[in-house]
Amino acid sequence: MDPLVEGQVQLGEEESAHCARVLRLGVGGEVLLTDGRGTLASGFLTATEGKRVGVEVTRCGMLPRRQGQRTLLAVAPTKNADRMEWLVEKATEIGCGAIVPLLCERSERGRINGERLKRVSMAALKQSQGAYLPHIYPMMAFQEFVMGVDAIESSIADVESGAVLRAVAHCGEGPRNDLRDVLRAAGNRPLTILVGPEGDFSAGEIALALENGFLPVSLGEARLRTETAALVSVALAGT
Amino acid sequence: MDPLVEGQVQLGEEESAHCARVLRLGVGGEVLLTDGRGTLASGFLTATEGKRVGVEVTRCGMLPRRQGQRTLLAVAPTKNADRMEWLVEKATEIGCGAIVPLLCERSERGRINGERLKRVSMAALKQSQGAYLPHIYPMMAFQEFVMGVDAIESSIADVESGAVLRAVAHCGEGPRNDLRDVLRAAGNRPLTILVGPEGDFSAGEIALALENGFLPVSLGEARLRTETAALVSVALAGT
Repeated sequence: MDPLVEGQVQLGEEESAHCARVLRLGVGGEVLLTDGRGTLASGFLTATEGKRVGVEVTRCGMLPRRQGQRTLLAVAPTKNADRMEWLVEKATEIGCGAIVPLLCERSERGRINGERLKRVSMAALKQSQGAYLPHIYPMMAFQEFVMGVDAIESSIADVESGAVLRAVAHCGEGPRNDLRDVLRAAGNRPLTILVGPEGDFSAGEIALALENGFLPVSLGEARLRTETAALVSVALAGT
Repeated sequence: MDPLVEGQVQLGEEESAHCARVLRLGVGGEVLLTDGRGTLASGFLTATEGKRVGVEVTRCGMLPRRQGQRTLLAVAPTKNADRMEWLVEKATEIGCGAIVPLLCERSERGRINGERLKRVSMAALKQSQGAYLPHIYPMMAFQEFVMGVDAIESSIADVESGAVLRAVAHCGEGPRNDLRDVLRAAGNRPLTILVGPEGDFSAGEIALALENGFLPVSLGEARLRTETAALVSVALAGT
């Protein structure tokens, strides 16, 4: 797509097809557009012939990034790919800054279909009329993520590294506070949260996270699946 | 199944088949059992022949109902049945006292498969090793639910009607507080939450809810699908 500005723009082929075939819009049909980086625009179709649909953008503005849209979710992908796709859909709807698939010692899945997850996320963003598309990273080893988390946090616009509340959710030994209480005490700080595979993080992984400033947290007494724990974290961090 | 007490019990046919074919347990295999009403028991298989498996229950106790397990979720079923099943699965995992499918003015679905939803919920309860199965009510008209909510609240064990925080989530006109803030101010009170269909509650439905002591709430600025709004509410209310 062209850059989002007021005036005439042309949609890309995929979005053009979406307007014509799915939304069944004709000339004059109203559309909302976003670049996934905060810009939300509205306008109407001016041409629907050919492969690329034309839009007259009448209003265009930048939305501020909300609290929940600063959340960095690092999660071990579920064995069942559907559950991961569902998580990406829901996290996008609720609001999330970035999603990092983690390769852990006890991971049940070492590969993800990043393109597919991105498509799921884009569909959810359109459906929910959001303006910030979570960046979905390639699979990253646990250690690599924890050591490089500063850079990833800074890549989420207006998140200052150091100002971020970092937490590792686990069910193992050792003291843990409820994420609800931790978030309440942290006030307006964005959240980076680690969620492990079905078999949980290893003791070594938890120790590494704690050494790197992650607080050990619990999501309550219920025994949650990976994707449920991830979603509850995103929901608690805000929309 | 027999009542859950220490000593010998026989599982029902369905659970017996689950032990034998899915869990592939033989004599001596360890099992956790629940009656879905708070009793959690552990034991081992003593006989696997015939249609009904025998279990020697060695420990048996009643778990207290946690905060989230007192939540009463009244929600308009989604057009897509999968999304409703997904919601029931996740609400059961996180914890929920009862689920009432609501028939609203703008409902897109007037019937549900209650038996199917119950099976989904039981599977989720087993998977998450929970002890309280949310009661899934038959479809109920909005007005009928709002006028009779006292009785349903009291049917969730140890929920005192009057002590319950009642809220209606909507996206319409009028003042609304964020459910996060409302729950925080309410302290330890259980939640009854109304979540509408994709087209939202009608103005008349909202007015009726407010007249009956429901507080108008928002779930944040994101535009959430019905099942997402319901799940965020359940997550915020606690596990």
